Amino acid sequence: MKPRDLRDILSAFNAGRMTSDDVIREIESSLYEDIGFAKVDHHRPIRTGYPEVIFGPGKTSEQVVGIVESMLDRSHPVLVTKTTFETFKCVQEVSGDAEFNELAGAIIIRSELETISRSGISVVSAGTADLNIAEEAAITAEVMGNEVVRINDVGVAGIHRLFDALPILRDSNVIIVVAGMEAAIASVLAGLVSMPIVAVPTSVGYGSNFEGLSALLGMLNSCAPGVATVNIDNGFGAGYLAAQINQGLTVKSE
Amino acid sequence: MKPRDLRDILSAFNAGRMTSDDVIREIESSLYEDIGFAKVDHHRPIRTGYPEVIFGPGKTSEQVVGIVESMLDRSHPVLVTKTTFETFKCVQEVSGDAEFNELAGAIIIRSELETISRSGISVVSAGTADLNIAEEAAITAEVMGNEVVRINDVGVAGIHRLFDALPILRDSNVIIVVAGMEAAIASVLAGLVSMPIVAVPTSVGYGSNFEGLSALLGMLNSCAPGVATVNIDNGFGAGYLAAQINQGLTVKSE
Amino acid sequence: MKPRDLRDILSAFNAGRMTSDDVIREIESSLYEDIGFAKVDHHRPIRTGYPEVIFGPGKTSEQVVGIVESMLDRSHPVLVTKTTFETFKCVQEVSGDAEFNELAGAIIIRSELETISRSGISVVSAGTADLNIAEEAAITAEVMGNEVVRINDVGVAGIHRLFDALPILRDSNVIIVVAGMEAAIASVLAGLVSMPIVAVPTSVGYGSNFEGLSALLGMLNSCAPGVATVNIDNGFGAGYLAAQINQGLTVKSE
Amino acid sequence: MKPRDLRDILSAFNAGRMTSDDVIREIESSLYEDIGFAKVDHHRPIRTGYPEVIFGPGKTSEQVVGIVESMLDRSHPVLVTKTTFETFKCVQEVSGDAEFNELAGAIIIRSELETISRSGISVVSAGTADLNIAEEAAITAEVMGNEVVRINDVGVAGIHRLFDALPILRDSNVIIVVAGMEAAIASVLAGLVSMPIVAVPTSVGYGSNFEGLSALLGMLNSCAPGVATVNIDNGFGAGYLAAQINQGLTVKSE
Amino acid sequence: MKPRDLRDILSAFNAGRMTSDDVIREIESSLYEDIGFAKVDHHRPIRTGYPEVIFGPGKTSEQVVGIVESMLDRSHPVLVTKTTFETFKCVQEVSGDAEFNELAGAIIIRSELETISRSGISVVSAGTADLNIAEEAAITAEVMGNEVVRINDVGVAGIHRLFDALPILRDSNVIIVVAGMEAAIASVLAGLVSMPIVAVPTSVGYGSNFEGLSALLGMLNSCAPGVATVNIDNGFGAGYLAAQINQGLTVKSE
Amino acid sequence: MKPRDLRDILSAFNAGRMTSDDVIREIESSLYEDIGFAKVDHHRPIRTGYPEVIFGPGKTSEQVVGIVESMLDRSHPVLVTKTTFETFKCVQEVSGDAEFNELAGAIIIRSELETISRSGISVVSAGTADLNIAEEAAITAEVMGNEVVRINDVGVAGIHRLFDALPILRDSNVIIVVAGMEAAIASVLAGLVSMPIVAVPTSVGYGSNFEGLSALLGMLNSCAPGVATVNIDNGFGAGYLAAQINQGLTVKSE
Amino acid sequence: MKPRDLRDILSAFNAGRMTSDDVIREIESSLYEDIGFAKVDHHRPIRTGYPEVIFGPGKTSEQVVGIVESMLDRSHPVLVTKTTFETFKCVQEVSGDAEFNELAGAIIIRSELETISRSGISVVSAGTADLNIAEEAAITAEVMGNEVVRINDVGVAGIHRLFDALPILRDSNVIIVVAGMEAAIASVLAGLVSMPIVAVPTSVGYGSNFEGLSALLGMLNSCAPGVATVNIDNGFGAGYLAAQINQGLTVKSE
Amino acid sequence: MKPRDLRDILSAFNAGRMTSDDVIREIESSLYEDIGFAKVDHHRPIRTGYPEVIFGPGKTSEQVVGIVESMLDRSHPVLVTKTTFETFKCVQEVSGDAEFNELAGAIIIRSELETISRSGISVVSAGTADLNIAEEAAITAEVMGNEVVRINDVGVAGIHRLFDALPILRDSNVIIVVAGMEAAIASVLAGLVSMPIVAVPTSVGYGSNFEGLSALLGMLNSCAPGVATVNIDNGFGAGYLAAQINQGLTVKSE
Repeated sequence: MKPRDLRDILSAFNAGRMTSDDVIREIESSLYEDIGFAKVDHHRPIRTGYPEVIFGPGKTSEQVVGIVESMLDRSHPVLVTKTTFETFKCVQEVSGDAEFNELAGAIIIRSELETISRSGISVVSAGTADLNIAEEAAITAEVMGNEVVRINDVGVAGIHRLFDALPILRDSNVIIVVAGMEAAIASVLAGLVSMPIVAVPTSVGYGSNFEGLSALLGMLNSCAPGVATVNIDNGFGAGYLAAQINQGLTVKSE
Repeated sequence: MKPRDLRDILSAFNAGRMTSDDVIREIESSLYEDIGFAKVDHHRPIRTGYPEVIFGPGKTSEQVVGIVESMLDRSHPVLVTKTTFETFKCVQEVSGDAEFNELAGAIIIRSELETISRSGISVVSAGTADLNIAEEAAITAEVMGNEVVRINDVGVAGIHRLFDALPILRDSNVIIVVAGMEAAIASVLAGLVSMPIVAVPTSVGYGSNFEGLSALLGMLNSCAPGVATVNIDNGFGAGYLAAQINQGLTVKSE
Repeated sequence: MKPRDLRDILSAFNAGRMTSDDVIREIESSLYEDIGFAKVDHHRPIRTGYPEVIFGPGKTSEQVVGIVESMLDRSHPVLVTKTTFETFKCVQEVSGDAEFNELAGAIIIRSELETISRSGISVVSAGTADLNIAEEAAITAEVMGNEVVRINDVGVAGIHRLFDALPILRDSNVIIVVAGMEAAIASVLAGLVSMPIVAVPTSVGYGSNFEGLSALLGMLNSCAPGVATVNIDNGFGAGYLAAQINQGLTVKSE
Repeated sequence: MKPRDLRDILSAFNAGRMTSDDVIREIESSLYEDIGFAKVDHHRPIRTGYPEVIFGPGKTSEQVVGIVESMLDRSHPVLVTKTTFETFKCVQEVSGDAEFNELAGAIIIRSELETISRSGISVVSAGTADLNIAEEAAITAEVMGNEVVRINDVGVAGIHRLFDALPILRDSNVIIVVAGMEAAIASVLAGLVSMPIVAVPTSVGYGSNFEGLSALLGMLNSCAPGVATVNIDNGFGAGYLAAQINQGLTVKSE
Repeated sequence: MKPRDLRDILSAFNAGRMTSDDVIREIESSLYEDIGFAKVDHHRPIRTGYPEVIFGPGKTSEQVVGIVESMLDRSHPVLVTKTTFETFKCVQEVSGDAEFNELAGAIIIRSELETISRSGISVVSAGTADLNIAEEAAITAEVMGNEVVRINDVGVAGIHRLFDALPILRDSNVIIVVAGMEAAIASVLAGLVSMPIVAVPTSVGYGSNFEGLSALLGMLNSCAPGVATVNIDNGFGAGYLAAQINQGLTVKSE
Repeated sequence: MKPRDLRDILSAFNAGRMTSDDVIREIESSLYEDIGFAKVDHHRPIRTGYPEVIFGPGKTSEQVVGIVESMLDRSHPVLVTKTTFETFKCVQEVSGDAEFNELAGAIIIRSELETISRSGISVVSAGTADLNIAEEAAITAEVMGNEVVRINDVGVAGIHRLFDALPILRDSNVIIVVAGMEAAIASVLAGLVSMPIVAVPTSVGYGSNFEGLSALLGMLNSCAPGVATVNIDNGFGAGYLAAQINQGLTVKSE
Repeated sequence: MKPRDLRDILSAFNAGRMTSDDVIREIESSLYEDIGFAKVDHHRPIRTGYPEVIFGPGKTSEQVVGIVESMLDRSHPVLVTKTTFETFKCVQEVSGDAEFNELAGAIIIRSELETISRSGISVVSAGTADLNIAEEAAITAEVMGNEVVRINDVGVAGIHRLFDALPILRDSNVIIVVAGMEAAIASVLAGLVSMPIVAVPTSVGYGSNFEGLSALLGMLNSCAPGVATVNIDNGFGAGYLAAQINQGLTVKSE
Repeated sequence: MKPRDLRDILSAFNAGRMTSDDVIREIESSLYEDIGFAKVDHHRPIRTGYPEVIFGPGKTSEQVVGIVESMLDRSHPVLVTKTTFETFKCVQEVSGDAEFNELAGAIIIRSELETISRSGISVVSAGTADLNIAEEAAITAEVMGNEVVRINDVGVAGIHRLFDALPILRDSNVIIVVAGMEAAIASVLAGLVSMPIVAVPTSVGYGSNFEGLSALLGMLNSCAPGVATVNIDNGFGAGYLAAQINQGLTVKSE
C-alpha cells in the first residue's frame, strides 16, 4: 500500500465515505497486498507473460488437472514440466489448446495474450542424451516470450562443432549450456564468449558421474568465470533464468 | 579473420604487394587471431573494462608481482583476489596506484581508462561472517565498471531487515546474494523479486554445513526459480557474472 | 518397582500372605518392570494414550497383521506407517475399527479409551509433494491425543502465504515443518515465532537434492535457533516428538 | 499492529488529534512493527529473558565488542559462543559484569532483570571430550532463565552410569544429550524416558567419524522416536531449543 | 610341498622310479600346491568343513547350477547366498539334498561328512527387518559346523529385552550383532560382554540412513572396543568370521 | 590446412584458376579442416580402423539405427555398447553384418577394410560378475584391430590363479584389469609386471561398495604405480585406451 | 542378582536379621550390581589383565594425569593412546613406572600382576607410514597379556615379502593387518590364511584416499571373507579385538 | 625357477654333485626367486633404469636418509617425492650427487648408468598452481630415462594456447595432463589427439572442488575416450605410467 493510496482512504474516512471498520479492512487487505507481492511473484506476473509452472513429478494427473483448471480463467500461459503423455491426455480434456512436447515431457498451454517474442537465447547441448533437458529449457524460455536457437550435440569430444556454432552463439544475449558427464563444454564456452552462460548439469553418464555430480562440480568449478549453474537436470530453471536475463535486456532497452 | 580482411589480403597478393609467403604468414597469424579470441577472452577485452583477474591463493608474492608487471603496459584494470597484505606491499612497489581492500583481501589497480560506471547491481549478504566474500563480489563488479549497492546482515533469522531492503533491491538489474549456513535468503529473495539472482554459497558455518555444502545445495535446490549459483566462496565469479548481465542490459539499451 | 511397592510385598511376605517363591517371582517380574520400562517405553505407556507404532516397510502383510493382533487385547491405539492399501485390507479382517489414511499410507486403530485431545500442534508443509509426510506427522500426533491444525503449500517461493498463516501458527505450542528441496521455510519460520519447530526434511526434489540431503542440511544449519530436525521423510518421528512436547505442556499445567 | 491499536489511531485522526501525515507515519512504523516482529524475534524478546546471542567464530574482538556495546543499553542478557579468552578481555573492558566460561569458551553478561529460573532441563554428555559442547548447551539454557542439571561421562560403554542417572533424568522436562563417535546414548535414552531429547552430535572421534557425521547420522536414525537433532557441535542451538520447550511448559502452566 | 614330500620324490628319482620329467612335473604341480594354497583357501579346506560359498546376485540360475555341479563330487557343503526360490528349483534338479532357507534367501547342500558341531555362536538382531541378514549369518555359521543361538528383535529402543538375553550371550564365544538404522546395539553390547562382537550393519532404514551408511559408521565408531565390522548386509561374511573365531577356540582346546 | 596446400591454392589463384571467392571458400572450409580435425578425431580416423562407437543407454532403437545407417556408407567398423538384443534386432534389419555380443551387450559391425590385428592386449577379470564389462573392453580392443587374450576369474581371494596367468600376462604390451568390490587385483598385478595396467572398477558388490566407489578408490590409490584408471563399468574406455597404447607400440615399431 | 541370593536375603529378613529397609537397600544395590556390570565391563575386569585405556586426543595433560592417578590404586595396567611426550612427562611425575612408546605415541604403566603372556597375535603393516598405528595395535595387545610378532613393510607392491612372512603368520591365532592407500593386503592375506584378520585402515595416502576412506572401503569390501574391520587409524581397537579373540582361544583351551 | 634350471639341478643330484638337502634348499630358494619377482618388480629392475621411489610425506629425514643409503650401493637412480629442503640437506650429506627440484619438492640422485633418453612424453598443465605436480610428473619421467616437453598454463579458459601447443603435443607418444578445478582440458585434448592421455587431477581450487574431487570426477567422466586417470596430485604416478607406455613403444620397436 502506497502512502498515496492511504491518503485517499483517510480522506474517504474523514469524509464519512468509509467507516472505521472499512478502513481497517482496507488497510489489512492492502497490507496483504503490500506483503502479498509473493502471490504475484509466485504465480509470476501476468503482465510479464511469465507462465504458471507446474512441476510434474509426484503429482497425480488429477492434481495436475486441478491446478491447470484453476489457472484457465487467468488467460496466461501454463507449463507442466517432467510430466507424461497420460497426464497430457487428462489435461487435454479440460483445455483443447494444450500441446505436448514429447522430447521435454512437457505440457504447454499458450497464452492468447502472448504476442511479443524476444530474440537472444541459445540452448546448446553436449550430447543426444542431454536433448530432453535442453528442450525443457528451450520451451520454458519460449513460453516466457523468447525466441530460442537450439544447437545440439556439440560436446567437446568434437570441439570443431562448437567452433562452427560460435558465430550464432556470439549473437545471443545469454547461452544455456546443457551437458552431462564432465560437462567441460561449459568452461570451454565461457572462455570463448562474453555473455553469461546458464549451465545445466545433467544426470547423463554412469559410474563415477554419480547421477550428475561430476557435471555439477565441473560447472561450479569452471576455470573461466561467467557460468551460472542451476540444479542437475533443471532445464526449467535454466530457461527461466535465461528469460529473466534476456527480458531485462530488452525491457530495459525500450 | 573476417572474409573482408581475407579479400584485402588476396588483392594485395594479386597486386604483387604481398608474396605468397606473406600471405601464408598473414593467414596463419590471422587464423590465430580468428581462433585466438581466447587470448582476448581470457584476459577479457580491454574495451569492456574487464579486469585481468589473478587468483591469489597458491601463488607467491613474486609470482603475483610478475603477472601484475606484465599487465601494467596494457593500461587496464587489475584485480588480485583472496590475497594478503604482504603480497599487496610487494605489488605496491611496482605500482603506486595499487589499493588494498582489506575486507575482501584484494588488490586493485584501477584503469585510467575506466570512466563509465553502470548502476544496477546490489550485493546482499546474510551475516557479518559473509562480508569478505560479499566485498569480493562487490569490488569485482566495481572494477568492471559498475556501481554497487551493498546491503549487509539481512539473513532470514530477521526477515524484516530483508523486507526493508526490498525497494532498493527491486531497483537493481541483478542481485548478488552471499550466504552461508542454510542460505535460505536466496530462495526467499527469488520468490520476492523479478530480476536474476546470483547466489554465492559461503563456507560460513560449522558441523554439518560441511565447508559450505549446505549453502551450496540450498541455493541449487531453491524452490523459487531465478537463482544462478556459483562456487562456494566465489565472490569474484559472482561479481563477474553480475557484471556480464548488467553490461548486457546497458550496452544493449544504447 | 518403587520402594513403596516393595515395602508392601515384604509386608505381605512377613504376614505369610506371600511365600518366598511368590516374592521372588514378584520381584523378578517387577524388576522387569523396573528395568523393563523399555517394554512400557517401547510400546509406549497405555496411560499416555501413546500408540503402538509399526513401521510398515519391509514387513509382509502377515507380519503386520500378526503384530496388530497381539496388540488388540491391550485396547490402546495402533498406528502402522508407510504401509499399503493391500496391507490395510488384511488388517481390516482382524479389526473392523481399522481406518486407512490414504494420503499418509497409514493404518489407524483408535483406542476406545482415547478421549482427551490436546490442542497446540500445527503441521506446516511447503509443497503439495510434501503432503503425505505432513499427513503422517499429523495423524501420528492425533492418534497420540492431539488436535492438529494442517497448513499446506506455504513454501517460501510465495512467502505471503506463510505470513497469512502466522496468527494461527503463533497460537501453537509446537510447529511441525515439512519441506523438501532447500527447506528454507524452517529457518524463516524459526525467525518469526517463539515456540519450538520440529523440522522434517523430505526427499522431494531431484538432482542435487540427493534424496533429501539438501533439505536435511538446510534444516540442521538453520541460521535461526529453535529447529529440531528428524530424519528425512520421518513424519512419524516428528508427530511423536511434537506430541511429547505438547503433552508435557498440558500435563504440567494441570 | 493490532486492529485495536488501529482503531485508536483512527479515533485520534477523526478527533483531529492526528494529522493525515501522522497517521501515515504511525501506520508505516507500526506496519514495520507488524512485519518487523523479526527484529524482536531476532534479538529475542526482552520479556522472555532470551539473550542476544553472538556466534564468535569469524568475528574479530573489535566486532564482538561493537555488537556487545550496542546491546548494553537494552539491559538484557548477552551470550557470546565459541569465543576466546582474548576476546573476553576486550569485552570485559566495556562491561565489568562480563564472565568467561572457559569450558564452553563463552562470554556471558547476565541481565539484571533476569530473576525467574525454571527447573526442568538436564544436560547429559557421553564422554569427557564432549564436555565443552555440553557446557555451551547448559549455559545457554541458564542464561535463558533455566536451572540446568549436568550429568557427564555416561556413554554407553559403561551403561550402568546412565541407569544410575535415570531417576534424575526422569524428573526433567527435556533432556539434552551431547555425544560424539556413534552417539548411541541418544537412542538408548530415548527408549528409556518419556520426555523429548535434544540431541547434539559432536565432532569428537576420528577416522570414519568424519568430523561428526557418524554421530549426526546415528542421532537422526535413532530407532526410538523422540529425538530432536541439531547441528554438529551446536551446543547453543540445543540449549536454546530446550529452553523453548521448557519455557512453554512453565509459562503455559501458569 | 613340504620338504618331507620332496625328499620322497628325490629318493624315487634316485631309485630310478621317477624320470627327470616325472620329477619336474611333480615338483611343478606340488609347487602349485605349495603356492596354490589359494585354491584350498579359496574353496576353503574340505577338512575344515568350510563350505564352498556362491554369491548369488548377478549370476543366472544356469551359472549357479554349473558351479554347484562342479562341486558335487567333492562331497563337502555348498552354500548359495542372496539367491531366489527360482534358482533353488534349478539347483534342486541336480541335487535332491538341496534345501532352501527362505528367510535368508539361501540354498544349502549339507556335507555328508559334516558331523561335528561346535557351540559358541549367538546371532542377535535388532529389528524384524534385520532378520534375513541375521539368518544368512546364522546358516553360514551352521553350514561351517557351528551351533547357533538366534536372538531376534532386541534393539535398544526396548533395551530390557537385550538385558534378558545377556545370560545366554555371555555363554557365547563370539556374538554376531545385526542392526540397521543407528545400530546402537553393537556398542551397547560391546560395553556389556567380554567376547568379540562381529557387527553387521544392515541397509534397514530410510532417509539419512543412506542405504546402511549410518549403521556402518555407528558400528565402526563404537565407543566400546571389541567390535569387528563387516560390510553392509554381509551376513555371510559375519557368519564366516564368527566361525573362524569359534573354530580356533575349539580346535585349539583339543 | 598445411602451408603446402595453401601454397597450391595461392598458385591456382595467381594463375586465375581460382577466383577470390573460390579461395575464400577453400580456405574457410580447409580452415575447418584445420580446426575440424575434431570431426576426424571424434569419429576416429577411418585409416586407423577405429570404430564409430555409440553409447547405447538413453537412446531409442530408432536413434541407434539412425546413427548406424549414417555410418554405413563410410565402410568402417561400428560398435554399440551397453545395448539390448531388441536394439540389435532393429540394427540387423539395416545391416546383415551386424553381430550381437550377448555377454557385453554390444552390437558390432566389422569393417571390411579391417585386416591387421595387433597382439599385445590381455583382459583380466576378478570375478564372474565382472565378465560383461571385461567382454566390453575386449571387443572394443578387437574391433579396433587387436587380438585380445581373456583371463577370467582370477581375483585375489585365490591368488594362485593370478600367478598361473603371469607368464601370459608378461607377454602383453598392456593389461586391462576389470574388478569390483575392493579391486585389490589391480595393485597386486601392478606390483608384479612392468607394462601399464588399465584398470576398470566395476559396480559389482553391495553395501559399502557404494555402486563401484570402493573399487574406484582402490584402483586410484594403488600402492604400486603403473595403474591407469577409467570410469566405473567403463569397459569401452579401457579397451579404447589399451588399443591406443598398443597401436602406438606396433605402429612405432614399423 | 541371582534368585539364589535373593532367597538368602528373604531368609535373613524372615529371620529378623534384616529389616525391611535393609532388604530394599540390598535389592536396590544388588540390582545396581545386576545392571551395574558395566562398571566392571567398562574398566575391563582386573582378572583378565585388561588395561584401563585412555584415549589421549582432546584431553589436557592434567586430565590424563587425573585419570591415571585414580587408577593407580587398582594395580592393573594403564594405557594412554595417541598422546604426546609432554603428557608422558606429566604422567611420569605421578608414576615412575610409566613408559613412553614413541612410535605409537602411547604411555604404558604395566601391571605388577600381569604375568601370563599368550602367544598367537601377529601385526602386519603395509608401509613404513603405517608403523605408528601398527605399534599402537601391538602394544595394546601386549599390555593385555599377549606376545606379539611384528611384521612391517609387506605391502602388495612387493608381494614376495608377504609370502616370505606366511609361515610365521600361519602360526598365529589372529592377524592384525594395518594398511593405508588401497589396503589390498587385507583381502590378499584373507585369501591365504585360515585365521581371522583384524583390519585397520589407516589415513596414510593423499588425494582420493580421502583421509582413509579408500582403505576403509577396501577392507570392508574384501572379496575374501574373514576380515574384521575397525575404524580408520584405530590401532587400539584392533589390538583389543585381537586380544579378545586370542584370550578366548587360550582360556577356553585350559 | 625355470624347468631348464631344475633339470640341471636334478642332473647334479643324479651325478652326486648335490645332496638331497642341497636340492631341497636350492629348490626352496629358487622357489622364492620364482615367486620372489616382487623384489625385482618392487624396486623396479635395474636394467630398465627405473628409480627407487621414496614417497616423502610421513617419513622423517632420518628414515629417508636410511632408505637412500641402502640404495646407494645399487648404483641406480633415486627419487624422493613430496619432500622438503630440510630433508634434502640431510640426504646431501650422504650423497653429494643429490639434487633438489624445488618446484616439485623432490630429491633426485641420477644413476651413473642412466644414458639412454627416450623422447615422446609431454607434460601439459592447466594453471600456474598446477606447476609443482606437473614438475613432479616430468622429473619422474626424466629420471626413468625420458626426455620431457613441458607446456604450462594452457587451461581451457584461454583455449587458443592449447591449440598453439597442438603440433608439439601431436609429436608425443603419450601426454600427461595436470589440471585442477573442473579439469576440462583433459577431455578437450582427448578429443583432439590420438595418443593416450595420462590425467592428473590436482587439488587446486576451493569450495566445491572438494580437495580435487571435481577434477578427479571430470577426468574419469571424460566424454572423449583415451584418458587414463591417476590419483589426485599424483604427479609421480603419472610420470611413471607415461614412462611405462613410452618405454614399451621404444623398446618394442628395436
